[in-house]
Amino acid sequence: MATIVFYSVNKTAHSAARRCLTSPLKRLASAGESVSRLASTHSRSVPLLPGTRWFSRGTGVRFMSHGTAGWSGNTRRGALALSGAAAVTAAAAVAGFLANTDHFQRAEMATRVPRAAKETGEEADIPQRCRGFMSPPVTDISVLQGNKDEMRTKMEMLIMETQADFCKALEKVDGGTFRVDRWKRKEGGGGISCVMQDGKVFEKAGVNVSVVFGNLTEEAAKQMRSRGKVLKGKDGTKQWWFGGGTDLTPVYIDKEDAFHFHKTLKEACDKHHPQHYPDFKKWCDRYFYVRHRGETRGIGGIFFDDLDSPNQEEVFSFVKSCARTVVPCYLPIVYKHLNDSFSDEEKDWQQVRRGRYVEFNLVYDRGVKFGLATPGSRIESILMSLPLTARWEYMHEPAKGTREAEMLDALRNPKDWV
Amino acid sequence: MATIVFYSVNKTAHSAARRCLTSPLKRLASAGESVSRLASTHSRSVPLLPGTRWFSRGTGVRFMSHGTAGWSGNTRRGALALSGAAAVTAAAAVAGFLANTDHFQRAEMATRVPRAAKETGEEADIPQRCRGFMSPPVTDISVLQGNKDEMRTKMEMLIMETQADFCKALEKVDGGTFRVDRWKRKEGGGGISCVMQDGKVFEKAGVNVSVVFGNLTEEAAKQMRSRGKVLKGKDGTKQWWFGGGTDLTPVYIDKEDAFHFHKTLKEACDKHHPQHYPDFKKWCDRYFYVRHRGETRGIGGIFFDDLDSPNQEEVFSFVKSCARTVVPCYLPIVYKHLNDSFSDEEKDWQQVRRGRYVEFNLVYDRGVKFGLATPGSRIESILMSLPLTARWEYMHEPAKGTREAEMLDALRNPKDWV
Repeated sequence: MATIVFYSVNKTAHSAARRCLTSPLKRLASAGESVSRLASTHSRSVPLLPGTRWFSRGTGVRFMSHGTAGWSGNTRRGALALSGAAAVTAAAAVAGFLANTDHFQRAEMATRVPRAAKETGEEADIPQRCRGFMSPPVTDISVLQGNKDEMRTKMEMLIMETQADFCKALEKVDGGTFRVDRWKRKEGGGGISCVMQDGKVFEKAGVNVSVVFGNLTEEAAKQMRSRGKVLKGKDGTKQWWFGGGTDLTPVYIDKEDAFHFHKTLKEACDKHHPQHYPDFKKWCDRYFYVRHRGETRGIGGIFFDDLDSPNQEEVFSFVKSCARTVVPCYLPIVYKHLNDSFSDEEKDWQQVRRGRYVEFNLVYDRGVKFGLATPGSRIESILMSLPLTARWEYMHEPAKGTREAEMLDALRNPKDWV
Repeated sequence: MATIVFYSVNKTAHSAARRCLTSPLKRLASAGESVSRLASTHSRSVPLLPGTRWFSRGTGVRFMSHGTAGWSGNTRRGALALSGAAAVTAAAAVAGFLANTDHFQRAEMATRVPRAAKETGEEADIPQRCRGFMSPPVTDISVLQGNKDEMRTKMEMLIMETQADFCKALEKVDGGTFRVDRWKRKEGGGGISCVMQDGKVFEKAGVNVSVVFGNLTEEAAKQMRSRGKVLKGKDGTKQWWFGGGTDLTPVYIDKEDAFHFHKTLKEACDKHHPQHYPDFKKWCDRYFYVRHRGETRGIGGIFFDDLDSPNQEEVFSFVKSCARTVVPCYLPIVYKHLNDSFSDEEKDWQQVRRGRYVEFNLVYDRGVKFGLATPGSRIESILMSLPLTARWEYMHEPAKGTREAEMLDALRNPKDWV
């Protein structure tokens, strides 16, 4: 399991404060027969400061897949180890505020991430690039074309491309087809939910894109503030920031998988700043923490927020690097474990771990809380992140020396995998 | 599924404000092969007012059972309709504050609730009554004996007896045996968790008792205040109140079961006040509401809080009436559906409904939120209320005219069952 979050925050405080926010792209992946979903969150209005109103607009993608639920008598196909890969990308966009980001080192992943978007290139015109998407983008193509240099356009194009790349990679390994739901939000914006259920490899897999704008409710604003970002209204200024994160939630420890997952992220981070990976790795362990259990949700990844330096261009470049790690982080692990067998006991352990996953998502996950507290949210997209099946056993505790105990130890004492 | 909550709130503000709080007794029941659990919450310390500290002490029982998870090829035993019965009782106790409550009309349920406690009677000495419990009570028997006229003692004895009655009734229908965990809370008090897992009838069944005291954390106090009770510190005064509730969460509508469940509660309520049932029935529908789904968790029951009139004695009497409806509300439904067969599709629907149940408990349930926010909580007791298994399907919507649609309609438009 893994998460990708795109934030784009923009505030202008002339006649009205303006704020751009992109909601999370989550990707949680596990090899084997499975199902994946995707959920999206969005923001609304609240007067944060006297005389000032905040608006938010955002673009987000959220991905998650759950594997190995399929059963066929005693023949078990599909791995339970369930490592996965994911990337975190985040970008902020303010219309007319950004320089071109084409200096991005796109070659870095070329050998590992053959992408339709790369073939067409960002130089290609927008209508041409849109042809490869799972659906027409949320924003009208003509509007995107007319504002093609704006960051909000670049962001929407990036996440639409990431969604398409990911869905196609998952369809290829699974053999199934994504259901595509396009939805509008009456308060502003909308989203595209792609869900594949009861596939051969995935129980449930989803990749959600949302592009939302509107005012923040008090509750939603509180969710924003709770992560430590102080929103100040100051006439004539603009604010933006980027946030993102991705983590992996395996059921058993496979050191090779964990190394691959973190190494891929580290390589993407290191191209931008040597402190990105170590800092954001620690942040991830802190964020994906199930406090009442005293354990992390998974083996971590990277997570960051409020990123606004050195400049918007460079942060978007970082975000793009991360987005392009999604496929190479995760798919190799799916292919590796595709035909692994597993026992009833291992399946039970997977179900118990999924229960903990549900606990995190419903009790702590900022995106879920934000979404549930936001009027007009598309609940099915938000809660798509919950697994097809989960299990709660009273006083479940693995015996010492077992692989289950090894997993728990890694959750209670976060490791350095690279 | 059903819930019983005992609150006992006591505040004295001489040297320090004192506050007695009992945590929820929850009972969620469903007929058929199943599992039941129980969870408890407790309170802690926070300075609510300058110069004043709040203490809480409470006694609570929480019960829940989940049925029909057992599978045996094509032979399905155990009902999915899963009605259940439960009662809500609440009582407040302040040492030396209460009159004797023996005028309670104990005869009312005598024909329907043969109870060990009744045989021994409340006139019996405390050590003798304790012999029928699932474990020694939380408070030392000698302490209870020395304070036998205090409400806190009466409350603890009542919930210990209710726990025993209920566990024995469930063991009888299931054939299994409860595991009993006795735990101490270093901040004050403790509890007794009784859980039966993988029984013949119950997947998971639990009845939890907790008797807790200590100071409230700020977060815990917030949880208390959020239900509308304003806690005032006033030197030399005492405050107490009672709260409680019970509801039923069936998977299919069985009007006869719903009638039985509500009628039993109404009869218990009507003996005390004609407005109790109608008022607390509405309160229950409001409380057990999954806002993001626009549906109630189940078909309701009764729920109340802040009850402090006409006097403590009468409220405790009401509480006791409710406690004694637990067995007659629920067990007849279990016996009725014990051998019902069910299809794979019906089982799936049950699992989806259980998913919604998890959503309510983790996102909205006050007891769970209070417990998770309270240091020193016993997590396994709190989260025992989660079902053994649950399911989340993307965009699940029953076809019109089906029994699943009938169930959803009742959740979206609460009915009057009596």
